[in-house]
Amino acid sequence: MDFAKRVSDNLHYDMDPIIRSRMDNDFYKLAMGQVIDHFHPEVRVRFGGLNRTSDVRLAEIIPIEAMREQLDHVKTLRYQANELIWLRGQTFYGVEGLFSPAYINTKRLSRLPDYELEIDKESGQFIFNTEGRWSDVSDWEIPYVAIKNELYAREIMKKMSVGELDIMYARAKAKLYAKLERIKERPSITLSEFGTRRRHSFLWQEWVINMMTECLGDQFVGTSNSYHAMTKGVEAKGTNAHELPMVYAAIAAAQGSDEDIRKSQYDVLHDWQHVYGTHLRVFLPDTFGTTQFLKNAPSWIQWWKGSRPDSKDPIEAGEEMIEFWRRMGADPKDKICLFSDGLDVRIDGYEPNGSDMIDIHDAMTGKIGDTYGWGTMATNDFLGCPPGRPAALKPLSLVCKVQSVNGQPAVKLSDNPAKATSPSKAEIERYKSVFGVEGVGESRETKV
Amino acid sequence: MDFAKRVSDNLHYDMDPIIRSRMDNDFYKLAMGQVIDHFHPEVRVRFGGLNRTSDVRLAEIIPIEAMREQLDHVKTLRYQANELIWLRGQTFYGVEGLFSPAYINTKRLSRLPDYELEIDKESGQFIFNTEGRWSDVSDWEIPYVAIKNELYAREIMKKMSVGELDIMYARAKAKLYAKLERIKERPSITLSEFGTRRRHSFLWQEWVINMMTECLGDQFVGTSNSYHAMTKGVEAKGTNAHELPMVYAAIAAAQGSDEDIRKSQYDVLHDWQHVYGTHLRVFLPDTFGTTQFLKNAPSWIQWWKGSRPDSKDPIEAGEEMIEFWRRMGADPKDKICLFSDGLDVRIDGYEPNGSDMIDIHDAMTGKIGDTYGWGTMATNDFLGCPPGRPAALKPLSLVCKVQSVNGQPAVKLSDNPAKATSPSKAEIERYKSVFGVEGVGESRETKV
Repeated sequence: MDFAKRVSDNLHYDMDPIIRSRMDNDFYKLAMGQVIDHFHPEVRVRFGGLNRTSDVRLAEIIPIEAMREQLDHVKTLRYQANELIWLRGQTFYGVEGLFSPAYINTKRLSRLPDYELEIDKESGQFIFNTEGRWSDVSDWEIPYVAIKNELYAREIMKKMSVGELDIMYARAKAKLYAKLERIKERPSITLSEFGTRRRHSFLWQEWVINMMTECLGDQFVGTSNSYHAMTKGVEAKGTNAHELPMVYAAIAAAQGSDEDIRKSQYDVLHDWQHVYGTHLRVFLPDTFGTTQFLKNAPSWIQWWKGSRPDSKDPIEAGEEMIEFWRRMGADPKDKICLFSDGLDVRIDGYEPNGSDMIDIHDAMTGKIGDTYGWGTMATNDFLGCPPGRPAALKPLSLVCKVQSVNGQPAVKLSDNPAKATSPSKAEIERYKSVFGVEGVGESRETKV
Repeated sequence: MDFAKRVSDNLHYDMDPIIRSRMDNDFYKLAMGQVIDHFHPEVRVRFGGLNRTSDVRLAEIIPIEAMREQLDHVKTLRYQANELIWLRGQTFYGVEGLFSPAYINTKRLSRLPDYELEIDKESGQFIFNTEGRWSDVSDWEIPYVAIKNELYAREIMKKMSVGELDIMYARAKAKLYAKLERIKERPSITLSEFGTRRRHSFLWQEWVINMMTECLGDQFVGTSNSYHAMTKGVEAKGTNAHELPMVYAAIAAAQGSDEDIRKSQYDVLHDWQHVYGTHLRVFLPDTFGTTQFLKNAPSWIQWWKGSRPDSKDPIEAGEEMIEFWRRMGADPKDKICLFSDGLDVRIDGYEPNGSDMIDIHDAMTGKIGDTYGWGTMATNDFLGCPPGRPAALKPLSLVCKVQSVNGQPAVKLSDNPAKATSPSKAEIERYKSVFGVEGVGESRETKV
């Protein structure tokens, strides 16, 4: 019996921190941060949280004190010396010295800004907002969402006995493994773990990554989580997110013409390749609608390596990309299509909760290089697992998005109108008139 | 870090003992032992081990040194003071003071006799034999079989990675729980855990008992394992086994007439009720064939509480018992039929490996009181669980039976000719002519 540990665990830990390192965040935050700090070090943004699963009244389930305790803890975290050394010395996407000494120093000094947290009684949801330097504020997104998810799971699990928890985890393990076995049936599928924000818990994500490493071998190519990448020697994966074109467009909208707004989505990529040269060139086409993005894309995009469709039906999106590359004079087979929206795998005894990666792969094979960033249903699939209450841990669709830029409302349109977001309805209408709605589908239920 | 424990675990334990207590044995050994020591304290018997799953060449899988190490360890075990106190003070089947002070003292002095262990090169099986005072020798059966089963599982698991083991146990947990959920659909089913000899491991059996306790509530009525019963506060269950009529018949065969042999199967019950009065009166009818046993049963058996059919198709056996009780002038609804032979429960995604308890229960409901002693498929069901090798831990049909009595070969006929056993074929033929073969079926594959 380790008396010291037993006693210390009981006496010293009032809480079990969910986020214990600044590196426990998505790697693309670091990749984007370097572009942000290079071109827009003074831009101030405001981020806000949202629970798209509005029927789960989270603020009536999670005590606000528990939220504050976790968020306050995250605020105390700094990048540690060993973490910064790893960022400087590690090779990312085959590139040595990806992060400049100046940027690493910025991260060394980085602090998460203050936040506001309230309860909206009517909706039963938390209202979370935070404002400050863009690259600092941006670092709140993933920890905020991960904390909310894990606290939610803890509250649900408080009502379960140790035996029920034992069976729940056993089933979840068997379920994940059954999916990995199906993926192994297609040795040409490669995938990365992208589930930090939606994970059941930090430790469960770690278990999932370990199991993917052991079971999938070369088919498992990385994780979006910088901390797990560092500690496990797995490749860190991720490039850029909607916040880049959203902020660029808001800056243009505040100062310029409709044409400036339209152009801003390509300025992002221009700045990106200024920083990363020929590396990390995977674009996200759907912020203001994929069809208009591709139609008006400048010819130099032909040199980019690939794209990440994120809100259309994946097979339609893949076919649209194949057509695009051909039109640009490139061979789609030399290009990558990174699918990362609501993915799952069909297994016996369960309905898939998302698009089946194997179906997508079979549709893409021989036409375009495909790879997968697997999130929610990799790191938070407990559907059918809690004894007697199969949907007790149904994953939530939680997000934390840029709301405004130097006071100007930000907008995302997406290919799925259900995902359109802005604090200003008028601004959404303005963007619709700027970008048009060609190729934007019917509103579809937001996948997890 | 508990340095002392870590270092001690590495330095002090060359082996992980499978049997750590004389109480880690079936309770019916204690119940039978009291009858044996009362009526036959000087009878010397010889027990021998057999692997009925002859295609698994166990002696080529388990190192003989590992067998010896475990068996030698069991030989060192004595009943501990706290165990004897529990046997004296505990209420069994509602009876206080079930075990006499004299018998408890016999157990205090009890030593397991020496054993012989060799390898039969041709069959690839171990040859195990042990000889001595009946009630001591009898205590070897369960530890010997449990050791062989657990060492076998360990050898198979040596080839599995930690991830594969993790998934294997997760699946086995989920599988057991799915069975318990089905059993809960019939709240009138009661069952006991009878799987000590066939268990995957001591710790797994413990897990199974814990889960049955939590999940089944009042439907879980006990365990056959004295150690688990003692430490967990679960009822100890079990009455008598084939060895009693086998030894009684062999004694009669050495000295008496055919009529004495036929009568010996009832002498067992006569002696039994001399010791236990109106308690623990559940008879095992199939040692020399159920049909002849019931046909010639003395009228006082009408007062017994029930029987344990063990080798016929269970529903046929149950109907035969209903008919028997009626013929004896008793109401079968007042009687118990304890099913304990090759039981399982049908669950989605798996073939049951044995008779479905729910089918039996549905067939018996309203006709006779039914209860279940669930063995192999409760404590050793890993079918379909090891990744990539679903049958790697297919349970084995291992037994250890009385071979001879004061030099006279012992015989079991059973209702299933595949289970007939004796070291002497001539003696089997003699018993067949004594008992007849009425009601004995076709040879059926021995269930686990």
